[in-house]
Amino acid sequence: MNLNALHKLGYGMYIIGSHKGDKLNGQVANTVFQITSEPPNVAVSINKSNLTHEYIKSSNVFSVAILNQGTPLQYIGSFGFNSGRDVDKLKGVNYKIGETKAPVFIDHAAAYLEVEIVQDVDVGTHIIFIGRIVNAEVLTEDTCMTYEYYHQVKRGATPKTAPSYIASEKGGDE
Amino acid sequence: MNLNALHKLGYGMYIIGSHKGDKLNGQVANTVFQITSEPPNVAVSINKSNLTHEYIKSSNVFSVAILNQGTPLQYIGSFGFNSGRDVDKLKGVNYKIGETKAPVFIDHAAAYLEVEIVQDVDVGTHIIFIGRIVNAEVLTEDTCMTYEYYHQVKRGATPKTAPSYIASEKGGDE
Repeated sequence: MNLNALHKLGYGMYIIGSHKGDKLNGQVANTVFQITSEPPNVAVSINKSNLTHEYIKSSNVFSVAILNQGTPLQYIGSFGFNSGRDVDKLKGVNYKIGETKAPVFIDHAAAYLEVEIVQDVDVGTHIIFIGRIVNAEVLTEDTCMTYEYYHQVKRGATPKTAPSYIASEKGGDE
Repeated sequence: MNLNALHKLGYGMYIIGSHKGDKLNGQVANTVFQITSEPPNVAVSINKSNLTHEYIKSSNVFSVAILNQGTPLQYIGSFGFNSGRDVDKLKGVNYKIGETKAPVFIDHAAAYLEVEIVQDVDVGTHIIFIGRIVNAEVLTEDTCMTYEYYHQVKRGATPKTAPSYIASEKGGDE
């Protein structure tokens, strides 16, 4: 059995935003996917230890910024390798407050979605949040970043709290 | 609201195999994703009307062949635009019987997974099957096919039963 096979699965790169009252946060995710077309529902897998998990649980909404291929590694890292418990991730970052009141991170985004939770599924370390789309916009026709591009070309790393973290993986600052 | 934003989400391209007793079938899917790393569990969204859904429900296992970028459109079409109820999709196709007894479609695959279901989630038209990996192998280091490449370069189409089907979508024979 060779779990490197999991590295061959395809994903995009996203910044997930949510809120808890007036408090706002965002985090990197790669596991956003459409699960039905009628209605157009999407899902995301979020680690229970992440602050964004707590915010989504509280507000029942999240936003998805779909990153373009040119997104700087530093921008991704600022959302992915810090916790909103320790730093204000929104400092110096452009965002707008969406219809759901979640922050929508428009920098480097080719499109975004806003989602209201209809179901959540406990899968152990993570929760799969499933929701209906209440807002969606295309911002640019830029090529979107794939998770493979992030790893291979950008030499990006995967936080240990990501669903796709594999203990043996090389090439990045964990 | 512009649901074309959903086209910006990133996926790979996969052939999902399963069995019901001695009967074998496979179908195309793009929504396979890792949901936890400890244990390494994955999920797939399958339309309830698909024969593969019936087979997975019966055997509680499925295989995932992760397609490489060079996979011919015809190969994908033979799995994606026919039902195993009408034609024998396995005719003329190379596969092996995996540890789970599901067929593993090795043609054009860069890697494969075999999965035993631990949970299924009803999301309306589709079921999300969540399972633990019981077998996984890397076959080649070929670049894997993204859903975007399938659409944009291969001019591939999306069956109406796919989670990512959008009624307005252009460019393909539905």
